[in-house]
Amino acid sequence: MSNRVRMGMVGGGPGAFIGAVHRFAARLDGEIELVCGAFSSSAEKSKSMATELGLKADRCYGSYAEMMAGEAALPEDQRMEFVAIVTPNHMHFPVAKAALEAGFAVLSDKPATLDLKEAKALRKIVERSGKAYGLTHTYLGYPLVGEARGIIEAGGIGKVRKVFVEYIQGWLATEVDNKQADWRTDPKRSGCSGCMGDIGTHAHNLAEFVTGKRMTHLAADLTTFVDGRRLDDDGSCLFRMEDGVKGTLSASQVCVGNENSLSIRVYGETGGLEWRQEEPNTLIRTYADQPTQILRAAQGYLSQGAQDGFRTPPGHPEGYLEAFANVYIDFARALRTDGGATTGIEGGVRGMAFVEALLKSSSKNSKWVEIK
Amino acid sequence: MSNRVRMGMVGGGPGAFIGAVHRFAARLDGEIELVCGAFSSSAEKSKSMATELGLKADRCYGSYAEMMAGEAALPEDQRMEFVAIVTPNHMHFPVAKAALEAGFAVLSDKPATLDLKEAKALRKIVERSGKAYGLTHTYLGYPLVGEARGIIEAGGIGKVRKVFVEYIQGWLATEVDNKQADWRTDPKRSGCSGCMGDIGTHAHNLAEFVTGKRMTHLAADLTTFVDGRRLDDDGSCLFRMEDGVKGTLSASQVCVGNENSLSIRVYGETGGLEWRQEEPNTLIRTYADQPTQILRAAQGYLSQGAQDGFRTPPGHPEGYLEAFANVYIDFARALRTDGGATTGIEGGVRGMAFVEALLKSSSKNSKWVEIK
Amino acid sequence: MSNRVRMGMVGGGPGAFIGAVHRFAARLDGEIELVCGAFSSSAEKSKSMATELGLKADRCYGSYAEMMAGEAALPEDQRMEFVAIVTPNHMHFPVAKAALEAGFAVLSDKPATLDLKEAKALRKIVERSGKAYGLTHTYLGYPLVGEARGIIEAGGIGKVRKVFVEYIQGWLATEVDNKQADWRTDPKRSGCSGCMGDIGTHAHNLAEFVTGKRMTHLAADLTTFVDGRRLDDDGSCLFRMEDGVKGTLSASQVCVGNENSLSIRVYGETGGLEWRQEEPNTLIRTYADQPTQILRAAQGYLSQGAQDGFRTPPGHPEGYLEAFANVYIDFARALRTDGGATTGIEGGVRGMAFVEALLKSSSKNSKWVEIK
Amino acid sequence: MSNRVRMGMVGGGPGAFIGAVHRFAARLDGEIELVCGAFSSSAEKSKSMATELGLKADRCYGSYAEMMAGEAALPEDQRMEFVAIVTPNHMHFPVAKAALEAGFAVLSDKPATLDLKEAKALRKIVERSGKAYGLTHTYLGYPLVGEARGIIEAGGIGKVRKVFVEYIQGWLATEVDNKQADWRTDPKRSGCSGCMGDIGTHAHNLAEFVTGKRMTHLAADLTTFVDGRRLDDDGSCLFRMEDGVKGTLSASQVCVGNENSLSIRVYGETGGLEWRQEEPNTLIRTYADQPTQILRAAQGYLSQGAQDGFRTPPGHPEGYLEAFANVYIDFARALRTDGGATTGIEGGVRGMAFVEALLKSSSKNSKWVEIK
Repeated sequence: MSNRVRMGMVGGGPGAFIGAVHRFAARLDGEIELVCGAFSSSAEKSKSMATELGLKADRCYGSYAEMMAGEAALPEDQRMEFVAIVTPNHMHFPVAKAALEAGFAVLSDKPATLDLKEAKALRKIVERSGKAYGLTHTYLGYPLVGEARGIIEAGGIGKVRKVFVEYIQGWLATEVDNKQADWRTDPKRSGCSGCMGDIGTHAHNLAEFVTGKRMTHLAADLTTFVDGRRLDDDGSCLFRMEDGVKGTLSASQVCVGNENSLSIRVYGETGGLEWRQEEPNTLIRTYADQPTQILRAAQGYLSQGAQDGFRTPPGHPEGYLEAFANVYIDFARALRTDGGATTGIEGGVRGMAFVEALLKSSSKNSKWVEIK
Repeated sequence: MSNRVRMGMVGGGPGAFIGAVHRFAARLDGEIELVCGAFSSSAEKSKSMATELGLKADRCYGSYAEMMAGEAALPEDQRMEFVAIVTPNHMHFPVAKAALEAGFAVLSDKPATLDLKEAKALRKIVERSGKAYGLTHTYLGYPLVGEARGIIEAGGIGKVRKVFVEYIQGWLATEVDNKQADWRTDPKRSGCSGCMGDIGTHAHNLAEFVTGKRMTHLAADLTTFVDGRRLDDDGSCLFRMEDGVKGTLSASQVCVGNENSLSIRVYGETGGLEWRQEEPNTLIRTYADQPTQILRAAQGYLSQGAQDGFRTPPGHPEGYLEAFANVYIDFARALRTDGGATTGIEGGVRGMAFVEALLKSSSKNSKWVEIK
Repeated sequence: MSNRVRMGMVGGGPGAFIGAVHRFAARLDGEIELVCGAFSSSAEKSKSMATELGLKADRCYGSYAEMMAGEAALPEDQRMEFVAIVTPNHMHFPVAKAALEAGFAVLSDKPATLDLKEAKALRKIVERSGKAYGLTHTYLGYPLVGEARGIIEAGGIGKVRKVFVEYIQGWLATEVDNKQADWRTDPKRSGCSGCMGDIGTHAHNLAEFVTGKRMTHLAADLTTFVDGRRLDDDGSCLFRMEDGVKGTLSASQVCVGNENSLSIRVYGETGGLEWRQEEPNTLIRTYADQPTQILRAAQGYLSQGAQDGFRTPPGHPEGYLEAFANVYIDFARALRTDGGATTGIEGGVRGMAFVEALLKSSSKNSKWVEIK
Repeated sequence: MSNRVRMGMVGGGPGAFIGAVHRFAARLDGEIELVCGAFSSSAEKSKSMATELGLKADRCYGSYAEMMAGEAALPEDQRMEFVAIVTPNHMHFPVAKAALEAGFAVLSDKPATLDLKEAKALRKIVERSGKAYGLTHTYLGYPLVGEARGIIEAGGIGKVRKVFVEYIQGWLATEVDNKQADWRTDPKRSGCSGCMGDIGTHAHNLAEFVTGKRMTHLAADLTTFVDGRRLDDDGSCLFRMEDGVKGTLSASQVCVGNENSLSIRVYGETGGLEWRQEEPNTLIRTYADQPTQILRAAQGYLSQGAQDGFRTPPGHPEGYLEAFANVYIDFARALRTDGGATTGIEGGVRGMAFVEALLKSSSKNSKWVEIK
């Protein structure tokens, strides 16, 4: 009998990019087993995915509601232990709610919900349930992002002053007609923001995580450059964080030629750090009077935590799927160890508060707005 | 008898960084001759510099006023043809005024003046004099910057949408006690802005030049991070340009480890361009459906104008001094050809208007301010 | 009942780097199932690994011989379909021989055998068995390596002239006392070459694969820089390939600060290609009269084959484990489709012939030696 | 009266690339004055160049012989102090001989002579004359090249083990029909080697300078890839240096897309250094157990000597012309200080010995040949 952590999945039917990614991530380390799923709102598609994945027929459900009920009815050592939610955004909340109320931990794709109100409601549900709740802020899964946070926490760059964070893509520079683009530009499924909700939240999350500071205020200018699009496809803001930190955040999906260019640069009184998602195995560290250093993945001079985040020795590049797998494995191990943390919802609430503040500021001619 | 263009210099005495740079630039191509100078407010220092430079004793003047008078008294084919002004900022205006009114063309270090009012006054003086006026916006002297402008002008990236421009240094991250830092952080000599006046204006100028659009509005947040400093040492703004272009501009002198990191990225409907001053021989060009291209200095596929801006073949890196020399040689050749242009003052006025708008916006809690 | 391809493993017990990597690779796509293993020469260690991996107790074997017998005795739809060999080098041959003779396909870590004689013997065994034989030349699993080959094959750089290929590491620059270093520098377990057998063969293999040409002659200079080491830890050779191609190949494990720096540059009459393993998602393409291009992972302008090799969209870096997984998935799918190819052994024979030629040339004062 | 060092020039008439470069270099610092020249074998072209350069008519000579005689007849404080030789290679020797014998110091473009025999003859002439002799090994003028040498000299990377040095261009990948290509591929004017004599010698020189070791033996494979060309256009060699250092050197002019890619990597027992001419303001330094460092131009942590080699602060890129100017200024200052060194010819002899060894080895099937 395998001792792997048992996972169910809602969403992620045929052709869904993010569902496939979650499965790669869950599989990589061999410590998690996909035991059931409600992969699609079409029962047929759901079945075909289940077959492809080698699930048992009786663990393939026609809807997420059925799945919660069906799994809850199984013996404790067989039923799924957590649900991965990989649906379009508008379903994140109802599925998470159903899962938590049925007694299952949740690992949800981001954003946590469609808006701040829902996020706060979900926070209450999480707290009430006492079940673990995690959000796949994938980019925090990169070990050098954790190293950056650790260096700052230890005072390695002195008091933080300035942050530049960006998440720039180009794939929506024109009207795009595919499944991925479709729901992202549809307010009903994506929420009240397009680009900012989709990727700006990752930039916000990264900035708060790396600096260890909360972003408190912002002044934003959001734009929809492509005619006929109903949501923002670009935006920038000035922001302020706790303790006098200032910065700029930009997110765009119309910067032609950019792929998935998430990057952060943080400068403190005595040093700086720079990291780019597209070359995630390198962390640049700057000093006032010494040469800039190139910190590299899996090297012995990194903190033990960062070293442990790599599966291979230096020079064997690890990437997005490994970062994603780190998020999964950390969640699954915590689940087994102590039931996991309920605090993951906090990031979801903060993300939604950030988006809400952006929209408010942008609609008020870039007035400074508090993020709360 | 040499046929070189005759130049005088005001400022640039012993130890003055920018004066030496102007002389390197003027000398490089062998078409300009330094014939006189008033290098320092100290007559002794001025003399020692004149001697070092091999000037004739009677062309070394005790003050700029003396110089204007002395040179004007010389036969036309001997007197200087233009004055290079390389004093601290607060002297730019009075020297330029004196030179123009004495009938000499002016090539001034930037900023043109201490503030917008002065800049507009200088504009009138220039117009009245009919003499050529140039401003050493050094970074426009890089041929690939011109290439970028040319590509955009020709529609190479489609309608421009978004601009990211930055000028980031780290050398003022702590209190710095030297001549360079001294006047830059002194309102009397530097003007009403520190970092933004010193380097932010280069970023503004670069953005307008490359896109061919005027920046019309901005919303700024300026900061003085170092205790006791009297002027801004960091700042960011959201901005808008003509024709719906949007962007962000940041300038900082407290980003530890950054040297002289001026960079611009411009994205249009069909492509993008990226250029960094610290590797000025490379221009990155992006496309929607084709591989990104690396355009390189002096290559035959560049426009003729860009090719002509290089002195050596591809792979022989050219840098800051060559860019600066391009500014000089263009000014000097125009002077001989047709008397040169009086329009250089326009950039000076725009730079001052930009700084004034920044200060106004920042003081009004980042309200949008028109640049006029 | 899962329809995944059933794999057994020999070697890869606790702490074995390459065994873990093979398992990551096999697991990633969810199409391969590890069903049995003989993980260690210690029965105890083997058991503990089997438990950790969730194998059934009766599929954990005390030795590879037992495993071949045990699996052969199972019904065809339950027994393993292929054996992954991840032992130290000296065991590759006997295990492969046993597996093939017991009717199982083999996917072996490289090198195929300890020397050329053994490799040729193994070739005969493979041919006799008719069973698929694959060698995990991991670096060929990077899709952009395949793209490079495809471009050259299609004449994209014209007739090939010159190749630079390198595999440079630094981790053995001093005496290293650990399990990884141990067997690699022990002639009995590693074979007659250290650095060249371990990593030089990857460089050789990459050069032949990308150019589509066989390396025919070489003139080599191998060195042991670290005192007391019994095998080469560095070497370079001049080489010639079919059709007049020339090149240099270097491999080293004493280049301090290098991690796993495998790279290739190929130049033909009309263009060139450059690829580096440490940034495997970028392929540089050069032209005579056009800007250099940056070809990037997963982009639509790549060949379909290269696109299919990526699991995520552009900008989501994939790395070493994904490349390794590509080798596995290709092997496993071929096995199911048509039984797989027996030709993989050819690469093994060529690798051994290359090493033998290196040793011969180096011992004869770098005389040109034919690789046969 | 200017106190600048007086220089004459032989060669460098209209359209000559390297002559113009020498003049830029001599001019940049304002400490050298071009006072006379014999720019072309055509008197007319020579005159037009003299006029363009503003030389006095009586200092423009019809031939180098006339120039030596004419200048020698002038008062000591007016006559030129040294001759810059910028002719095609075959004239380097006769002009240098004439200058030295007429009592003038020489700064010659490289190579010093057409072959080793001539170089040794010139060495005798230099020694007999007691006059300063310099060779413009331009790339040694880059301050970070000197820094690399200094680090190694001070034991900063431990005992040197391995060197990779390359000089790769692509501009002769096809038959090229221009003045530059013309003489370079003509044995009469270029000497017995094409690519190796032209650029391979720079790589050799760089390797010896940076390591402080003499290259003692090599095994070479030279090639002429372009049909009809009479000299090598590509080549690689294995080499050995004093004290057990080993390495590879490649030079090529047919690597399509490469511009002027001179690079060196040196690894010792405890560290390494990497430098590339196309980004000359960066020196990479590697360590066994610490992060790689990026050493940058003009930074305060460099040696004083390296700092002094830069004219501008960090982040203001300096390039090829500045490096060339460093060679000039060092030569001119030494001349004034103590008459300058006669040892520059040593580099010329070594360069010719290197080329001779290459040709001998390549003609003997890459046999190891001593460089003497």
